[in-house]
Amino acid sequence: MADQIAKDAHLAATVLKTLSNDSRTVALKIMHDALRDSKDKVIEANKLDLKEAQTAGLSQSLIKRLDLASGDKYDSMLQGILDVATLDDPVGKITLATKLDEGLELYRVTCPVGTLLVIFEARPEVIANISALAIKSGNAAILKGGKESIHSFKAMADAVTGALSKSEVPKNAIQLVATRDEVGELLKQDKFIDLVIPRGSNALVKNIKDNTKIPVMGHADGICSIYVDIDADAEMAARIVVDAKTNYPAGCNAVETLLVNSSIATTKFIKVTQALLDANVKIRATADLIAALESANVAPHDNITLATEADFETEFLEFTIAVKSVPDVAGAIYHVNTHGSKHTDCIVTENADTAQKFLRGIDAAGVYWNASTRFADGFRYGFGTEVGVSTNKIHARGPVGLEGLVGYQYILKGNGHIVSDYAGAGGKKPFLHEPIQF
Amino acid sequence: MADQIAKDAHLAATVLKTLSNDSRTVALKIMHDALRDSKDKVIEANKLDLKEAQTAGLSQSLIKRLDLASGDKYDSMLQGILDVATLDDPVGKITLATKLDEGLELYRVTCPVGTLLVIFEARPEVIANISALAIKSGNAAILKGGKESIHSFKAMADAVTGALSKSEVPKNAIQLVATRDEVGELLKQDKFIDLVIPRGSNALVKNIKDNTKIPVMGHADGICSIYVDIDADAEMAARIVVDAKTNYPAGCNAVETLLVNSSIATTKFIKVTQALLDANVKIRATADLIAALESANVAPHDNITLATEADFETEFLEFTIAVKSVPDVAGAIYHVNTHGSKHTDCIVTENADTAQKFLRGIDAAGVYWNASTRFADGFRYGFGTEVGVSTNKIHARGPVGLEGLVGYQYILKGNGHIVSDYAGAGGKKPFLHEPIQF
Repeated sequence: MADQIAKDAHLAATVLKTLSNDSRTVALKIMHDALRDSKDKVIEANKLDLKEAQTAGLSQSLIKRLDLASGDKYDSMLQGILDVATLDDPVGKITLATKLDEGLELYRVTCPVGTLLVIFEARPEVIANISALAIKSGNAAILKGGKESIHSFKAMADAVTGALSKSEVPKNAIQLVATRDEVGELLKQDKFIDLVIPRGSNALVKNIKDNTKIPVMGHADGICSIYVDIDADAEMAARIVVDAKTNYPAGCNAVETLLVNSSIATTKFIKVTQALLDANVKIRATADLIAALESANVAPHDNITLATEADFETEFLEFTIAVKSVPDVAGAIYHVNTHGSKHTDCIVTENADTAQKFLRGIDAAGVYWNASTRFADGFRYGFGTEVGVSTNKIHARGPVGLEGLVGYQYILKGNGHIVSDYAGAGGKKPFLHEPIQF
Repeated sequence: MADQIAKDAHLAATVLKTLSNDSRTVALKIMHDALRDSKDKVIEANKLDLKEAQTAGLSQSLIKRLDLASGDKYDSMLQGILDVATLDDPVGKITLATKLDEGLELYRVTCPVGTLLVIFEARPEVIANISALAIKSGNAAILKGGKESIHSFKAMADAVTGALSKSEVPKNAIQLVATRDEVGELLKQDKFIDLVIPRGSNALVKNIKDNTKIPVMGHADGICSIYVDIDADAEMAARIVVDAKTNYPAGCNAVETLLVNSSIATTKFIKVTQALLDANVKIRATADLIAALESANVAPHDNITLATEADFETEFLEFTIAVKSVPDVAGAIYHVNTHGSKHTDCIVTENADTAQKFLRGIDAAGVYWNASTRFADGFRYGFGTEVGVSTNKIHARGPVGLEGLVGYQYILKGNGHIVSDYAGAGGKKPFLHEPIQF
């Protein structure tokens, strides 16, 4: 069953790959209209999910994520499809062109990755969002939702499938899989599925990464750090740390670890700590820093406790921060590169040389100088939309826009050219290797 | 042990990442000189390997690959290090720059992938080649050689390690691991190792892919196809197919499958078959094509036999080709996308519309029109050097040059900017999202 779903998606992908941007854009508009016209049906189905979630005693935050009728969520979702439709076509862009010889031209051209497997939890609007992104970028997608959104999922699946049948996009290009047992089997289809995109909790992502050979684009942890340097502007440091911790602590780009140059433990650090305490942040600091806070009469304090080693590998996702002193920027880099999650890390300093060391030394998708880690976001980066945030080292890193859903192919156009005419393969002709203007 | 090797490499990578192109280039020159000065020692060690290989009765082709003294292999290897040293720096290239707001600038900058694990079999010159590529691109590398080249490996490792100690590159940036048992443990170090590059047989690559969660860049199979269309120039088709099959049949870019439009079975196909038979190629054809060859009095022939299904998923790597008829270009695309290995596939046709369908429809790293599949090679593409050929769908595809060893980071430079000032995060400021010229 899972292998058939995956094979069907793969074959649909090979057709979808050949469609023009116009055909893909038209399909998105038809999908938009179908979901708009099915709004009542979908909201009704969604109410069933909400009722069952309440009966099952699921958490309020989950129920909130599940609720499609709240505020303008449904209309934003519809608008999102139109927004994706108007984005630049990511497919067919030439990124390299070389004349190998007279009449023998090599082009590197962006193309869809192929077949995506998107696994998500409560948020049913992901269906519209990901379907739009997949079709726009020419990828087939298999969408696997959680059981808590099963009714909304089915109603939306009907609308999407009905819409695609009126477009040039093959119906198997978007397949919605609702049953629970399929996930494990789908994760084994590395012959047909090219990329897995998890949209959900850390536990979900970790579980997927541990159970598939298919590349996974996403992040499990977001352990972001801020290093306050000896040459930091203390007020700026306080403002950045408070923003990064409190603006949206559940975000993967919220700061979790504060590193402080040990020379400023009794000076600038006191100012930063006061600002955090004023913002109701709980501080878990190393013993030397607690001593410094005591000497400044800031500690003892109910919200200041001794940090454990584990605190520096913890994504708190709440108003708690782990704080540690380091001797210098090298110490900060070492800490981040051994304890961080390669998401986004920041230095606060007025010293450009020190900043440069940090920017070059940190092994993370985002490295910031004097700016809140919360800027790590596709919308803020100007990508128009966001597929997710990747902490992988290859392919897409950081906030991923449509570009993360394309790869490239080499296209070679000749006129009967054979290698045995060329030097190195039995012949004498040299290669020209001249750039072609594009 | 393996975890310590991997952790050391990871830490060395974070230092290597910060070195300038000059420092990395100087290190390569020191490495070149050390290997030049150790030539006698290395060749002596290599003779020991050759002797043991002969005693163990290893194949002549393996012994040939092992032999560092044959022809100008050693000097080419040395020259290769200098060639890599003079390549453009792949690190630190800006690929996107956006002004998010006044004083808040986002840059996407290429950076090393991190730590590479390179696993290779007989060829000891890979040590010099990969060490040079890794250092040039700012990556740490763990090199794991086969036991058949252990003596050459140790002699070269001494020279390389000695050379690095005289440079700014940390000594753990290149670690050479000789013992057999380490491989399995190294493949588990996904916390520290970012990319595995296998250089060896299909069996080696398959085994590695099956036993690691780390991304693997390479290819197991190279099942390349050529489709001869109804509108093909028969002479050109014959020339291309013979070149692609016979120029170097052991190459991964050699053709293995010939697809023929069924309408030309008794015409153009006869010409192509004659050319293949003249070149001593064994033909395994489907029944309808054998009938066509019989009607033209070309079959029965000792070198023409009936193809099995398995032949169309076989990498022959010798003078044998599997041949099948397809009704049209769509049939050819379907066959390639279900039986191919995403390496390189070609259409021979004079019809631009048909060619366009094929170029758009084929899901492979290389898609060719009227040119031999043997062109799929980093040197021929003009990359100067080749890390390998990738049949992955993400990150690097096809022949991979230095570019395949870099990813990117986002660098954000601010002046105390916090998100809570901006719309969508509690504030009112809009983003500018203006491109910065670079």
